Amino acid sequence: MDSYLIQVNGHGDHAPMLDVHLKNTGNTISPGKVKGRKPRWAVRASEMSKKTFNPVRAIVDSMKVEPNPKKAMISLSLGDPTVFGNLPTNDEVTRSVKEVLDSGQYNGYAPSVGYQSCREAVAAYYNCPEAPLKAQDVILTSGCSQAIELALAVLANPGQNILVPRPGFSLYKTLALSMGIEVKLYNLLPEKAWEIDLEHLESLVDEKTACLIVNNPSNPCGSVFSKSHLQEILAVASRQCVPILADEIYGDMVFADCKYEPIATLSTNVPILSCGGLAKRWLVPGWRMGWILIHDRRDIFGNEIRDGLVRLSQRILGPCTIVQGALERILHRTPPEFYHNTLSILKSNADLCYAALSAIPGLQPVRPAGAMYLMVEIEMEHFPEFENDVEFTERLISEQSVFCLPATCFEYPNFFRVVITVPEEMILEACSRIQEFCEMHYQGAEGAQDLECDK
Amino acid sequence: MDSYLIQVNGHGDHAPMLDVHLKNTGNTISPGKVKGRKPRWAVRASEMSKKTFNPVRAIVDSMKVEPNPKKAMISLSLGDPTVFGNLPTNDEVTRSVKEVLDSGQYNGYAPSVGYQSCREAVAAYYNCPEAPLKAQDVILTSGCSQAIELALAVLANPGQNILVPRPGFSLYKTLALSMGIEVKLYNLLPEKAWEIDLEHLESLVDEKTACLIVNNPSNPCGSVFSKSHLQEILAVASRQCVPILADEIYGDMVFADCKYEPIATLSTNVPILSCGGLAKRWLVPGWRMGWILIHDRRDIFGNEIRDGLVRLSQRILGPCTIVQGALERILHRTPPEFYHNTLSILKSNADLCYAALSAIPGLQPVRPAGAMYLMVEIEMEHFPEFENDVEFTERLISEQSVFCLPATCFEYPNFFRVVITVPEEMILEACSRIQEFCEMHYQGAEGAQDLECDK
Ligand SMILES: Cc1ncc(COP(=O)(O)O)c(C=O)c1O
Ligand SMILES: Cc1ncc(COP(=O)(O)O)c(C=O)c1O
Repeated sequence: MDSYLIQVNGHGDHAPMLDVHLKNTGNTISPGKVKGRKPRWAVRASEMSKKTFNPVRAIVDSMKVEPNPKKAMISLSLGDPTVFGNLPTNDEVTRSVKEVLDSGQYNGYAPSVGYQSCREAVAAYYNCPEAPLKAQDVILTSGCSQAIELALAVLANPGQNILVPRPGFSLYKTLALSMGIEVKLYNLLPEKAWEIDLEHLESLVDEKTACLIVNNPSNPCGSVFSKSHLQEILAVASRQCVPILADEIYGDMVFADCKYEPIATLSTNVPILSCGGLAKRWLVPGWRMGWILIHDRRDIFGNEIRDGLVRLSQRILGPCTIVQGALERILHRTPPEFYHNTLSILKSNADLCYAALSAIPGLQPVRPAGAMYLMVEIEMEHFPEFENDVEFTERLISEQSVFCLPATCFEYPNFFRVVITVPEEMILEACSRIQEFCEMHYQGAEGAQDLECDK
Repeated sequence: MDSYLIQVNGHGDHAPMLDVHLKNTGNTISPGKVKGRKPRWAVRASEMSKKTFNPVRAIVDSMKVEPNPKKAMISLSLGDPTVFGNLPTNDEVTRSVKEVLDSGQYNGYAPSVGYQSCREAVAAYYNCPEAPLKAQDVILTSGCSQAIELALAVLANPGQNILVPRPGFSLYKTLALSMGIEVKLYNLLPEKAWEIDLEHLESLVDEKTACLIVNNPSNPCGSVFSKSHLQEILAVASRQCVPILADEIYGDMVFADCKYEPIATLSTNVPILSCGGLAKRWLVPGWRMGWILIHDRRDIFGNEIRDGLVRLSQRILGPCTIVQGALERILHRTPPEFYHNTLSILKSNADLCYAALSAIPGLQPVRPAGAMYLMVEIEMEHFPEFENDVEFTERLISEQSVFCLPATCFEYPNFFRVVITVPEEMILEACSRIQEFCEMHYQGAEGAQDLECDK
């Protein structure tokens, strides 16, 4: 997860000692059947743990990050809106949990898919005529991450493949590879506000395709699909008979000039598992409250997928009950102004950031319409000093102490991602440092051409 | 998990319709490459979800449970100490979480293995000279269930095997089978207060054995291993070079006449992953706060297992941060009287229950020394009406409205398990109904012999 970039604590003080052989000692009891095994210590981490690979971590760990000691670090890298304190959750959200604690009624085990009453509350909140939901259509999970994990685990077998956006959130690939599921990346088109290249998408479908992941609004793009584009996506899924895993964790987080459509409201036949949660819209990502909404009006998932989700949920038994218990109150009591306020801050930051970066030679930001991010193209031909986006962002740290994620983290080289949840002054300061940085390293058309000729 | 027996909500109103064929409609866009696939809807649940099998659920679902309408139901089946309200958590525990909520400081993402400060708090709490612990030796998880899941996932590959107690907690097998890991059951000996049959245990080890699960104190037995028995177990593990997964979720929950020894304190070489959590001792199972303590003084796990655990933790990103944030306060502030009080209630219930059941013809309870359970042998030869423990407990429901889990749920036929966290009056009433039931169905030596001759 990109959210842990800086926080994850290493344990580097353990020497690698992977295959220690120790003498057997203390053979006071008869050794029993050893069946030809000459005992020695050789404890190896499983293949699965080795395949569980977080590309963001790998890339960031490989960056030699030494900020410029003369400038305070500004990190625009974490998809965690809470880090700077400028976006606190609403008091009603906190109060709801405190009431639940006081009641003492939510300390015991809930069913592994969540309390019935909480599933009902979520169903009622997201229910609409075009995509009706009942309690039984809701599975509560430990964050949207576990929702995605369960959805993938129930839909795909090892050896099958899933269709994943490029650029896209890295967790999809991390989870898929750890389960032995192949990832096929379909392109998003920056010149079309990150719409899906539908032809490319459809060309990737084969008989082993288990599902199509649609992330709307998007991390890292900050893009929001129009109704008609969502209908086109559904048409592909319908024609190819591929179910959709909709990652809608940024659902409803769209700026005023734009409308968010849950994809399930536009579908009459494609079965959809929509993953969401409290993390982003309610600004409490640490609380680990997520859900899967099962949309299956043609009974294509049927009992089989539902049962599979219930079974899988029993492995670790659902999210924290005191947050579950507060869910209904949180959904009902959070005042509309809270959501509006968040979005107007995000929109204003997005506008500021977009305007500032647009003015910088060699950068091409793409205007976001929602979520909490903005992607910026680096015209690499104008920065011949740098091999790629990783080097560009690395040097941006060492010279300007500004940390943005290179979009290679999202399988999309030559872009970087800016998080727009930080305080306005920080955005502005960061943008002006990025400007200084680019002006320092930019090479105009001639210089760049010279360099191309050298190659 | 046995904890969900009654609560899990079915969704029986979905007709099984697993392979729905729908006509393709709306082919307005060119169909793209279909690569010989004739699209049709055929969404199947994954093999993994089908292999994720909860034996308790399967057995209980198959029981035709209709309680006697003339008697109020008494359920002694759930391993959830909170259901009857007689064992509330301590006020300091609740207050700690409320303070964290008020601080507003714990709403963001924590590192996927937990906040450094919380890992430190757990390490300090369980640290001791014989088994030192530092923050880096602690991984915070979503309940002890996820601790066990991660420990198994990092230690074992599909095709390997793990050694699991019989009778034992069903989650081990559920998780192992879902991961393609073979389960080998080693016997516990009721006549030796449920000590491990060490010879049997050792005979099961082969070159594919990835770990030995030791559950102490035990669910379902309520047994507590002595220091010397734990040393014998360690000797086997050491001789066979098999790491231990210690399920110590009931750690410290032992009655006054008995001492709990964390197995790691007795080991100098065997690497141990000890799984625990807040669920039982702090009486908040719904909060889903667990941990893995890594004991590896000979560096046999080394970085490899530690890294594997970190990687695996990134799949769903750790437990709820507001409980994490409260952990240090919970560990420090909970008054000793709280623990003592819980244990004296449990001990008194255990004594009452043991005495009452001992007096019943045809039953042989085994006296517990800790945890929250008591196992009772059914002398099946005296109850020729009933095929097995499942039928016995089924009839106990339909005639007496008393629900105990048949120990077939724990791979141990002809026993049943009694949960002793219920209020005293309930235990007594349940025991007297069990007595009535047994007296009704008991057949003395002669009757039984007659029946044996008939066969
Ligand atoms: C697109 C997307 N999906 C899912 C998640 C995970 O959400 P959660 O924190 O609820 O697990 C994130 C978090 O950054 C995200 O950006
Ligand atoms: C032996 C044993 N281990 C683990 C667990 C799971 O604990 P948690 O609720 O923290 O996941 C239980 C719960 O009943 C248990 O009895």
